[in-house]
Amino acid sequence: MKVGYKVWLDHHGKAFGDGPYELLRRVEKFMSLLRAANQMGISYSKAWRLIQTLEERLGFALLVRKVGGSSGGGSRVTSRGKDLMTRYERFRRDVEKGLLKIYDKHFGPRK
Amino acid sequence: MKVGYKVWLDHHGKAFGDGPYELLRRVEKFMSLLRAANQMGISYSKAWRLIQTLEERLGFALLVRKVGGSSGGGSRVTSRGKDLMTRYERFRRDVEKGLLKIYDKHFGPRK
Repeated sequence: MKVGYKVWLDHHGKAFGDGPYELLRRVEKFMSLLRAANQMGISYSKAWRLIQTLEERLGFALLVRKVGGSSGGGSRVTSRGKDLMTRYERFRRDVEKGLLKIYDKHFGPRK
Repeated sequence: MKVGYKVWLDHHGKAFGDGPYELLRRVEKFMSLLRAANQMGISYSKAWRLIQTLEERLGFALLVRKVGGSSGGGSRVTSRGKDLMTRYERFRRDVEKGLLKIYDKHFGPRK
């Protein structure tokens, strides 16, 4: 047996979690929301709506968009977005460690 | 902002969580799976299937059933079921405390 869980940041609904984190990481890598969405197997419009919803709930912009140009435009994660990603990474690691420890305390094989 | 989460015990799928815990608590109270299910707003057949699935995944019985008799039968939680409930209660409290603490560390207003 093991512990199963989902964790997210909530502000008037789901405001950030593993999925958004992975999407932003890919935007950083490809500098493109389209390529990030493609790589995660979701449509551009779904990714776009997700970002809109998260930005509304968080109260700040996650992406800056550059439309057109020779490269066909692109997206970058804002500095507040990057700060959120960094905090979320650390939060997520602590959650994983913490939950395993709590699980072991109550259900682990050692007791 | 706050932390949102779901947590459960996993063994070949969801094997125990808040819903099953609440259902068993009501079985203890009413000594009846039917009344427990009614009070949670789920059908008897759904509650019954849930218990079957959990017992299969956990590998032990949660309920002992008494069919018929003057009282029309009834259900009781087994001692292994009660032990699981007790551990789960403590586990659940530690999870709540732990996650709030981890959230505060990374996103709390104090930093």
